[in-house]
Amino acid sequence: MAEEEVKNKQVIFRDYITGLPKESDMHMTTDKIISLKLPKGSNGVLLKNLYLSCDPYMQILMKTIEGPSVFTSYTPGSVIMGNGVAKVIDSGHPNIKKGDFVWGTIGWEEYSLITTPEALFKIDHTDVPLSYYTGILGTPGLTAYVGFHEVCTPKKGEYVFVSAASGAVGQLVGQFAKLMGCYVVGSAGTQEKVDLLKKLGFDEAFNYKEEHDLDAALKRYFPQGIDIYFENVGGKMLDAVLLNMRNYGRIAICGMVSQYNLEQPEGVKNLMQLLYKRVRMEGFVVFDYHPHYSKFLASVLPYIREGKITYVEDIVEGLENGPSALVRLFKGRNVGKQLVVVAHE
Amino acid sequence: MAEEEVKNKQVIFRDYITGLPKESDMHMTTDKIISLKLPKGSNGVLLKNLYLSCDPYMQILMKTIEGPSVFTSYTPGSVIMGNGVAKVIDSGHPNIKKGDFVWGTIGWEEYSLITTPEALFKIDHTDVPLSYYTGILGTPGLTAYVGFHEVCTPKKGEYVFVSAASGAVGQLVGQFAKLMGCYVVGSAGTQEKVDLLKKLGFDEAFNYKEEHDLDAALKRYFPQGIDIYFENVGGKMLDAVLLNMRNYGRIAICGMVSQYNLEQPEGVKNLMQLLYKRVRMEGFVVFDYHPHYSKFLASVLPYIREGKITYVEDIVEGLENGPSALVRLFKGRNVGKQLVVVAHE
Repeated sequence: MAEEEVKNKQVIFRDYITGLPKESDMHMTTDKIISLKLPKGSNGVLLKNLYLSCDPYMQILMKTIEGPSVFTSYTPGSVIMGNGVAKVIDSGHPNIKKGDFVWGTIGWEEYSLITTPEALFKIDHTDVPLSYYTGILGTPGLTAYVGFHEVCTPKKGEYVFVSAASGAVGQLVGQFAKLMGCYVVGSAGTQEKVDLLKKLGFDEAFNYKEEHDLDAALKRYFPQGIDIYFENVGGKMLDAVLLNMRNYGRIAICGMVSQYNLEQPEGVKNLMQLLYKRVRMEGFVVFDYHPHYSKFLASVLPYIREGKITYVEDIVEGLENGPSALVRLFKGRNVGKQLVVVAHE
Repeated sequence: MAEEEVKNKQVIFRDYITGLPKESDMHMTTDKIISLKLPKGSNGVLLKNLYLSCDPYMQILMKTIEGPSVFTSYTPGSVIMGNGVAKVIDSGHPNIKKGDFVWGTIGWEEYSLITTPEALFKIDHTDVPLSYYTGILGTPGLTAYVGFHEVCTPKKGEYVFVSAASGAVGQLVGQFAKLMGCYVVGSAGTQEKVDLLKKLGFDEAFNYKEEHDLDAALKRYFPQGIDIYFENVGGKMLDAVLLNMRNYGRIAICGMVSQYNLEQPEGVKNLMQLLYKRVRMEGFVVFDYHPHYSKFLASVLPYIREGKITYVEDIVEGLENGPSALVRLFKGRNVGKQLVVVAHE
């Protein structure tokens, strides 16, 4: 092993799964040696990884995906990929230099060699916690921002419902909606999460696991009906929401986490409501909105600095605890944005 | 009975139904006497009805409708209401005069007294068949036009699928799509209807009842996938279409006729595709688009006069045959727009 070479601790994806991911679907290795200097002539970048993001979509990538899709499955035997924040330790790219911080798709490993650094975002503002670029200032933040402002086309005073509302995206959708003067209710799966939502300024919040009749629960919180539903869960919740939509309502489909691990997705029965109420239901994928990132940042950074938006993180220390953190997210045990610290800066 | 009074033959709605409507859910009466002169001071209009439209939504009105809705159920014991064409025989309204022809919501009866004539459309162009104002130049025509052009936002060369394609709306959506330079496939429930679709210029057509695997059928006709789905049927067809949508596809929900008579609607399982493919699915109701009527007429009348659009009608003679014509429509036995002649002009 040459002087500039180190063993690179990595989290490896074992093989395609069915059902809920388990820790044993991943394993740690230090078999790979990595040089901390780029090969001569490379225009890639070499990263020291700091924070890794645990995201619901990652369980989709652990399965075989049928048909053409915006998602590409992980390769068995390869390192898990995901969003993260890293420090540049060597660069062959003209716009990125050693010492810069970046965020984007990196490996679940101590060091990543990225051959397409154009896909990374350079971090220009370091007066806020760097971990925020896995959340409020990264993909979940942009997702919440464009999903709410572009797809939901909200108006002041509208009635907004957010499911999985304490998660990385949901907690922001609710706060964006409050900043716009909407009435906002969130659902979550534990009392602790419900309490958190109220602290974050949601008008109301409820634990969906304690409601036998979701339709009745929604009618209680939305006697006038729902203008905007920010959909993160799918299945029974969507069916109940459909019964409570108002005329010209909008449903932005960000995810359907309750469906990812079912053999067969649940059937949604109340789609006739889309017709009766002239509702628009639209799926969106944040990748399509990367050009909105500067506008988003200019809008959200002042809110963070002025304390008008709070972001709650659930932080696990150590790459070796990555697999358990990921499984924790899939089981809904995290409170707030789940992330893993690989190294402090 | 005074000189100006006549017995008014009417089709009466018996009582709320479940399941498929039967002829016996309606009955004929001539109990009501109607004056052929308006009462003094009335600003309504008195109509001699000519053509009545049989429309799929009418079976929804025969049931109790739960919750707030754009639809209002029929009242048991009252006359069936629907779209139709009529001649004005007396008028108290400044903009409508005796001898004018109008179309809009009228009763299933020989004569209708309309107290809100503002809701009627005056017929300015009588060089085309008057019956067309129950179809291509009436609500189904406007539905097809705004549903396709406004909700589906089509582009030249896109791949368009229309279900219930030989119906009052579907046959026009297909022809509008062809006029825009799209590739169009329609589905219908008999070989006769399939043959009709090909005559109307659809690129392909198939009998859904002869396809065991709708997903496979759609993959055969749309190897590249579907950009636009004009939804008239719902249920299994929608589930199969979802699997075949292309990125940024659009689904306009005009109706879900396969679901109207089920105790429980079928569950639609493939909604995750809306997310994967960033598809927009939107319900629309033609009433919201009445301001588009003049633009629509200016666009479609020349096509009719130049023979660039064909409109197929399935005409039944006599109000007393109205109930059987309506049931025929609900059973899918009509070929083309189903209508009833009450009186020739």
